Amino acid sequence: MANRKITIWDVAEKAGVAPGTVSRTLNNIGYIKEETRLKVMEAIKELDYIPNRAGRTLKTTRTGLIMLAIPDTANAIFVGMIEAVNECAKKRRHSMVLYYTEGKLEGELKAVRMLQENLVDGLFLVNFSYSDELRKEIERCDSPIVLCGMCNNPWMKEEEKTFGTLSIDVYKGIYSSTQEMIRNGHKKIAYLAGEYGTIVYKQRYDAYCQALRDHGIEYNEDYVFWKNYTQEHGYEVGKKIYLMKDRPTAMVASNDLQAVGFWKACKDYHIQVPKDIALYGMDNLEITQMLDISSIQMQEGMVGEAGANLILDCLENKNEDIGKVDLYFRPTLIQRKSSS
Amino acid sequence: MANRKITIWDVAEKAGVAPGTVSRTLNNIGYIKEETRLKVMEAIKELDYIPNRAGRTLKTTRTGLIMLAIPDTANAIFVGMIEAVNECAKKRRHSMVLYYTEGKLEGELKAVRMLQENLVDGLFLVNFSYSDELRKEIERCDSPIVLCGMCNNPWMKEEEKTFGTLSIDVYKGIYSSTQEMIRNGHKKIAYLAGEYGTIVYKQRYDAYCQALRDHGIEYNEDYVFWKNYTQEHGYEVGKKIYLMKDRPTAMVASNDLQAVGFWKACKDYHIQVPKDIALYGMDNLEITQMLDISSIQMQEGMVGEAGANLILDCLENKNEDIGKVDLYFRPTLIQRKSSS
Repeated sequence: MANRKITIWDVAEKAGVAPGTVSRTLNNIGYIKEETRLKVMEAIKELDYIPNRAGRTLKTTRTGLIMLAIPDTANAIFVGMIEAVNECAKKRRHSMVLYYTEGKLEGELKAVRMLQENLVDGLFLVNFSYSDELRKEIERCDSPIVLCGMCNNPWMKEEEKTFGTLSIDVYKGIYSSTQEMIRNGHKKIAYLAGEYGTIVYKQRYDAYCQALRDHGIEYNEDYVFWKNYTQEHGYEVGKKIYLMKDRPTAMVASNDLQAVGFWKACKDYHIQVPKDIALYGMDNLEITQMLDISSIQMQEGMVGEAGANLILDCLENKNEDIGKVDLYFRPTLIQRKSSS
Repeated sequence: MANRKITIWDVAEKAGVAPGTVSRTLNNIGYIKEETRLKVMEAIKELDYIPNRAGRTLKTTRTGLIMLAIPDTANAIFVGMIEAVNECAKKRRHSMVLYYTEGKLEGELKAVRMLQENLVDGLFLVNFSYSDELRKEIERCDSPIVLCGMCNNPWMKEEEKTFGTLSIDVYKGIYSSTQEMIRNGHKKIAYLAGEYGTIVYKQRYDAYCQALRDHGIEYNEDYVFWKNYTQEHGYEVGKKIYLMKDRPTAMVASNDLQAVGFWKACKDYHIQVPKDIALYGMDNLEITQMLDISSIQMQEGMVGEAGANLILDCLENKNEDIGKVDLYFRPTLIQRKSSS
């Protein structure tokens, strides 16, 4: 496409030295006479030569990049994390690249392999799985990794781990919102669950169940709706509730996307929020602020900043052992019109 | 962190061959006896050796990655683009990584340099600047680039270019929404402009002015509000209009973020939309759908898919000259309650 690319051989020829000398000059390896170094630098400037990063990586093992791997951006909660990691990386003279795992083990493994292959210097992985396979691949890495599972990380506090962990106490979050509904006098409290069988959504569901139990409210399986964490699921559940004979009077959603979808269905089917049904979301997305839906602030900005700083500390040798690091974040309730 | 990393030398020792033979086997270069190849592959398997991608990149010049560089994710319009590029890359056995330029020349140059340094195989750059410096760097790349400026790309249709261009006819979009307001009987039409001096927002502003001119409506500079493309700007302008003696009866925003901020201010200051002031956004974000704000559908999914396919065609040698490619997308009006 462009003209022929200038190579290290062109520089060597122009400077009248061997290609190896150019390479040693570029990578600061071994002794180079100042006079030779100047000749090489001049040739580089004249030819406008771009050193091949892949070549340099072999020597220096640094790319200046850290990778943030997240499931997707459909959920705006990751946007706050992205901004924090990006800002942090920039401040400390690194660049962030982003990779989407789609919340699947396959994607998470791929992110880890990019780190193993030195495409980036460090990895901040938001993982949804805790499989042995993922763990094995992570432990083969020479470069710093932090994991954030958007839940209470079951790998936290383990003795032998080689990666940092960031946890968000979602259990506490859902427990609080369910309890808040109970305190407001609700007895028929429905629950918008996520994907059945995933640890992330199991913790949230357990918290809902525990709050009911602790307050002597009987569990009703007709009021629990499993599927996934999307707006569409929330909307579908809204439709179902519209058709129910014995409707719940409160709805706890396991995230804001579901809550927004549910809110929309209520609007379309003339169910009044909070008069007919109170509603709590989780994540405190901007859209729930706009729609006056109560939610839970997850501290995703703080999580992003802490994770990025850990990785960068490690790269700058300020942190001896990232495996000993476990950070814990506690979400807070934000009460709005939808639950009052 | 982990145990000592297995290197090519370990593999060579185990297989009883020279390190160069291992390298040639891995990279499929030159003639290798089948017996030797098998010995090497077996040693790799036994040692669980991970080839260093940086080393391979030098030989094959392929990473399997394409980069999408966008200004940020504060604007949800990029989310549709991200999804499309990601999907397309995956289908064709590549991975997408994302980089944020922050809409600044510095960030755009950095993305181009990552391509020059072979960190990725191809680049899809959403650029806001059209400087000579950016162009010069782009033309030094050996790898495929497409540019999408979220406007009518001034580099389109140039004879000598080495990059593909994707354009969105935003001029047409803003012209249509302004015209729609005029057809609905409005004469006092305000305009929420973006950043003064950027080509992206100049085109939109020109379209607004031209629509007024074409319909004999006098331009009123008190009704034009420059600053940036954020929700905050929209909100501020809403406050200003609340305090105005001679209020406009319609507002054309140059994007949806502004429109949403403006809508929020109207709500807070009891200005009724559309009774007191009609409103048009641009981008057709989900949130404008939720709030019943009229907007303009930008086709960002189609743009993403087209750009990714162009790059991948080029990498698979299905496309001879990406510089000859110019694709043009036309947005469409979506009318909702806010402008009726």
